[in-house]
Amino acid sequence: MSTATSTVRPVLIAGQWRDADHRDTFQATDPNSNEKLSAEFPVSTWADCDAALDAATDAARQLRRLPASKIADFMECYADRIDAAKDALSDAAFAETGLARSPRLADVELPRTSNQLRAAAAACRSGDWAGATIDTATGIRSCLSQLGPVCVFGPNNFPFAFGSVSGGDFAAAIAAGNPVIGKANSSHPETTRLFAIEAAKALEETGLPAATVQLIYRTSHADGERLVSDPRMGATGYTGSRSAGLTLKAAADKAGKPIYLELSSVNPVVITPGALAERSEDILGQFVTSALMGTGQFCTNPGVVMLLNDASTDSFVDAVKEKFASAAAGTLLSPAVAKSLSSSVQKLCEYGAELLTGGGDIESGRCAYANTLLKVSGKTFLENPEGFQTEAFGNASLFVVAESIDELCQAIEQLEGNLTGCIYSATDGSDDEACDKIAFELEPKVGRILNDKMPTGVAVSAAMNHGGPYPATGHPGFTAVGVPGSLVRFGKLTSFDNIRPNRLPQLLQDKNPTGTTWRLIDGDWTQNKVG
Amino acid sequence: MSTATSTVRPVLIAGQWRDADHRDTFQATDPNSNEKLSAEFPVSTWADCDAALDAATDAARQLRRLPASKIADFMECYADRIDAAKDALSDAAFAETGLARSPRLADVELPRTSNQLRAAAAACRSGDWAGATIDTATGIRSCLSQLGPVCVFGPNNFPFAFGSVSGGDFAAAIAAGNPVIGKANSSHPETTRLFAIEAAKALEETGLPAATVQLIYRTSHADGERLVSDPRMGATGYTGSRSAGLTLKAAADKAGKPIYLELSSVNPVVITPGALAERSEDILGQFVTSALMGTGQFCTNPGVVMLLNDASTDSFVDAVKEKFASAAAGTLLSPAVAKSLSSSVQKLCEYGAELLTGGGDIESGRCAYANTLLKVSGKTFLENPEGFQTEAFGNASLFVVAESIDELCQAIEQLEGNLTGCIYSATDGSDDEACDKIAFELEPKVGRILNDKMPTGVAVSAAMNHGGPYPATGHPGFTAVGVPGSLVRFGKLTSFDNIRPNRLPQLLQDKNPTGTTWRLIDGDWTQNKVG
Repeated sequence: MSTATSTVRPVLIAGQWRDADHRDTFQATDPNSNEKLSAEFPVSTWADCDAALDAATDAARQLRRLPASKIADFMECYADRIDAAKDALSDAAFAETGLARSPRLADVELPRTSNQLRAAAAACRSGDWAGATIDTATGIRSCLSQLGPVCVFGPNNFPFAFGSVSGGDFAAAIAAGNPVIGKANSSHPETTRLFAIEAAKALEETGLPAATVQLIYRTSHADGERLVSDPRMGATGYTGSRSAGLTLKAAADKAGKPIYLELSSVNPVVITPGALAERSEDILGQFVTSALMGTGQFCTNPGVVMLLNDASTDSFVDAVKEKFASAAAGTLLSPAVAKSLSSSVQKLCEYGAELLTGGGDIESGRCAYANTLLKVSGKTFLENPEGFQTEAFGNASLFVVAESIDELCQAIEQLEGNLTGCIYSATDGSDDEACDKIAFELEPKVGRILNDKMPTGVAVSAAMNHGGPYPATGHPGFTAVGVPGSLVRFGKLTSFDNIRPNRLPQLLQDKNPTGTTWRLIDGDWTQNKVG
Repeated sequence: MSTATSTVRPVLIAGQWRDADHRDTFQATDPNSNEKLSAEFPVSTWADCDAALDAATDAARQLRRLPASKIADFMECYADRIDAAKDALSDAAFAETGLARSPRLADVELPRTSNQLRAAAAACRSGDWAGATIDTATGIRSCLSQLGPVCVFGPNNFPFAFGSVSGGDFAAAIAAGNPVIGKANSSHPETTRLFAIEAAKALEETGLPAATVQLIYRTSHADGERLVSDPRMGATGYTGSRSAGLTLKAAADKAGKPIYLELSSVNPVVITPGALAERSEDILGQFVTSALMGTGQFCTNPGVVMLLNDASTDSFVDAVKEKFASAAAGTLLSPAVAKSLSSSVQKLCEYGAELLTGGGDIESGRCAYANTLLKVSGKTFLENPEGFQTEAFGNASLFVVAESIDELCQAIEQLEGNLTGCIYSATDGSDDEACDKIAFELEPKVGRILNDKMPTGVAVSAAMNHGGPYPATGHPGFTAVGVPGSLVRFGKLTSFDNIRPNRLPQLLQDKNPTGTTWRLIDGDWTQNKVG
């Protein structure tokens, strides 16, 4: 039974901001006060999901008949609107996440978000992402195109840049020609609503189907599973906790529906004695900044640092400990994050990690936890590698101190899939042999391998892989960030075999549709027309 | 307990032809006599799988250190050996599958197989498949590379071209730098063994790790599930029955291991009255050839034909019926195929399809079933679309006769994912409007759409998509045939971020590794070096 009232925020379905069909409501929490914010949001029933799926199906049919440039127009218009709404968006996100209005929200994440939309729009306009392939000898031509409605579950830690109706998955899905049903992250529903308002206006302004972007805030777990596995669904993008992600994955997998997941990652960083001998101060600064930035709440936060047992490591660990102890503990995104961090640190201690500093809540009236540093020997790590890879999402890191390169490599061999892996080594090449050995073990475990650089900071680049082997993500061949790679996930491959020229999609006709689209014609990449 | 004896065929593990660890054995059947062939093959226990996984892991480590050209050398050497072993391979496959020695096995499938290996070798040598991407502004470079050991389950219907240690998945996995554990199809184990003998010799000749290619013949279902989900496994390629495929998929999905499946497809063919008015004789010939070729045992066999109810359709159906009735029924691959075909036809009749001809076993002493034609109205089809999409693998087709274009489009809307979909229409364009409507519905349902051409015959082309939405395959973005697309499935994406130049893989160094490799440098595809 629906109990929609005017005090509960409306959902956006089929172009209408309307009362949700809901039984329950929820409120976000201001992590700076630990108090609930006043706005109430509906927990939609299946009726809302069903209506959104129907509307998305219809929008998908309409989008297929539109030129890519129309979709790009929308994305660019939306990007401009996001820039213009900077203050309101930053205020809302600050209230819901505690992330600093400036520079973080207004000056870093917001321009990243609008520029990401513009980059995806450019890819959409160019058609390069579709990998158009023409084989004149056989008369077969192929490209990627619309897959169908995409559901995006955004994470708690990037209310803009990974947001359900504003972030990377959203931009990629739309640019590939798909309508999106956004499922707001429950910790920042108001922020997500403000984005959807701008998106809806941009859709209207640019004449796209109104149901190209829809928004619901929350569903039951069962309805979430039903949503990602519904026959009308094309694919799902999910960034968030491992347990919820795996439940959705199981449902989507069973229905044969692609689901792209970004789950968890401890992002190992190896620092050799050679590197410490050369520039321990520099590395110390880099590490502490990377580890505590955003209160450590990045997917690519350096959660596990691997070192060799020697005097330089001892000094380094002591220095990090001091920095962690003296730095103010940032605000965490939500009570749930604080609770989960506390539970993870407790587990790591139970497994035998030594607590060097932190390890407790801060009595501050806000969501916060002391900057926490833990240490374990390589030997102990190897006795319970799974346990010591428990992700402590937030401002906590675990140092693993090995007795030898061999032991360190053994520890790496036990790592699960991760988004990133870093190696800091001597610049004079004196430990290159050890590094080669380490890199050989580390590379297959991670989506992005770095030298002399911390993993936080995920550039929007064609060469970026924000991905990695399971369970970092659900498939080792895809990236969630970067164009055109991120779009490819939301495309369906279709071959056109002996299709009459006038019936071919523009991308596959003899004429280059834009004059500059890259196509693989008879084995060569070219911007030329056929023939 | 192992009961290996010298009369049971050995498995190929870690470069050794050795007695299997097995409890049971099995024999293939000669479909031309319905009698068991004498050779006994082991049903391996987990111990064999475990040993193969260990050896494959070790081989993968060695392969990572080798230049791509070494792997290409092996594939080319193996291709030459296959060509040289043509007679023995064709004899073995004829005995086990009943497929004609010539032209089918020796003159069509065999050269396709060796040429497919050569095409994959060329892709491996060029590195084009890896999509090397270089972004000089951010210092990030990425490419695909080895994913890890791949298990290949080959189907019954292409003992060479889709064989576990010779076919498309095998070639793609090896060219992407992965060792392969082949699981022979139980209907042609001897043929697979002969291929593995040639592969092992080619490995030795070209100096590749002996465990790059391994072979087991059969396992328990539980061990098969364990194999595809083992932590040491990189990915699995499976072509075969839907039920077995879905069981493996569930296991692999749960472990987060990619599995590429080709399951089932009825390959709808739409023929408009306009096409029949113009050239019904021609289309009749094309259809009957495509439907009965190889006794209809192709993944892309035209199993469902959609027509409009008018006089030209009546004549066409009558003509097909006559051709089906008068053509000799071919031999089916195995007793299991005959049984499954009979059961599918029975189901279609139970659902309400009219049996126009065939529909029974042939008393021939061989595996055979009468050429079978069934018919159902569009209305009846729409009452049970799932039932009427029961795949009747073999020499049977179902005609769906709709009352209108709208009804025909409704029927298409109810189709599951398919490998292919064809539209035959008037060449003078008189029914183009109807065709556009049909194509709009059909395209999202299929991996390859064709005009005026039957779906059988899968060209090895860069533009080929031998794939399609679930349940035709497990992922709508990938093809199992064609280079470089098929290789991409078996690659892991890795970004190299700020990696020192001397530590970059060859493909990503400033210098173009071959002089001609296509790389995406700062947004443009080029064969140039960086800078």
